[in-house]
Amino acid sequence: MEIKRLTPEKEQGLVVVITGNGKGKTTSAMGMALRAAGHEMKVCIIQFMKGDLYSGEWDGVTHLGKYVELFHTGKGFCGIEGNPYPHSEHRKNAQEAIDLVKSKLASNAFDLIILDEINNALALNLVDLEQVKEILSLRPDRLHMILTGRDAHSDIIDMADTVSEVREIKHAYRKGIVPQPGVDY
Amino acid sequence: MEIKRLTPEKEQGLVVVITGNGKGKTTSAMGMALRAAGHEMKVCIIQFMKGDLYSGEWDGVTHLGKYVELFHTGKGFCGIEGNPYPHSEHRKNAQEAIDLVKSKLASNAFDLIILDEINNALALNLVDLEQVKEILSLRPDRLHMILTGRDAHSDIIDMADTVSEVREIKHAYRKGIVPQPGVDY
Repeated sequence: MEIKRLTPEKEQGLVVVITGNGKGKTTSAMGMALRAAGHEMKVCIIQFMKGDLYSGEWDGVTHLGKYVELFHTGKGFCGIEGNPYPHSEHRKNAQEAIDLVKSKLASNAFDLIILDEINNALALNLVDLEQVKEILSLRPDRLHMILTGRDAHSDIIDMADTVSEVREIKHAYRKGIVPQPGVDY
Repeated sequence: MEIKRLTPEKEQGLVVVITGNGKGKTTSAMGMALRAAGHEMKVCIIQFMKGDLYSGEWDGVTHLGKYVELFHTGKGFCGIEGNPYPHSEHRKNAQEAIDLVKSKLASNAFDLIILDEINNALALNLVDLEQVKEILSLRPDRLHMILTGRDAHSDIIDMADTVSEVREIKHAYRKGIVPQPGVDY
């Protein structure tokens, strides 16, 4: 079978927001990184609020070698039970991540930048709406940007080209199944 | 920062369904493949109804080398305008894909099997409900299985552990932006 390849008449950077309370937001962004690597595009992933809990994509993307760079920043989820860090420290970490995003934007080295959990970071006041808007305004036309995390701000949804809401219909943890490697992290 | 690693007290295969009309179903499954490769798990992806239109994940997964095998089967989307193949030919292809799934199941070589667009194939009568149920019943306890595609059957949702519905809030194509490599395919 001969493979057909679409070539868009006009290449255009998209802003994609993946939000909602279901499983599959970060996961979907990782899938786009994999797909982009297949197209030999350069991808930068900056994870907000990820902390020190290992997730499979950290090693997964190393297999994507020269195409994908991933930075996990933060001290884990802010505001959930058991997280020992004060809000000020979460905010400081998220602010450093914002600086990282700006430097990666300025490098002009990427075709796709993924801002993982930034919607969450905004909802929790770790970053400011004006900062996220500024980042979107600095985006060159050809650059794709994906913003994940629940509770996306309506102004960000307005600025996006494609927005998906991942709704939880059911989740294994509700029947007591602990998180499983490969699927859940 | 020292990295903490979760190790589930009990490893348990999950059935995950990703359905709905929004962008991010196949993409999410590809993200789980990437994540699983990071955990050095073996992944088999069988795509139903994909046809000959290139998608970035076909090359993307080659970077995941020994961890991921991907098979794209089918003759493109059935029932959409411009697709020249009769239903019988789509069904024949999907039936071959079912046989492939069964042989991969029997090989016992995988930790995660992704059945991409199988929900769709079932809704379009290219495969039968009993066939999908049989595949789920053949799944060993430790094996994860992910079923993607819109219009997931309620019986399959009942049998799943985790189900997400990806809802379209907006999509770039509705304002006339053609599909873009890396993000849309």
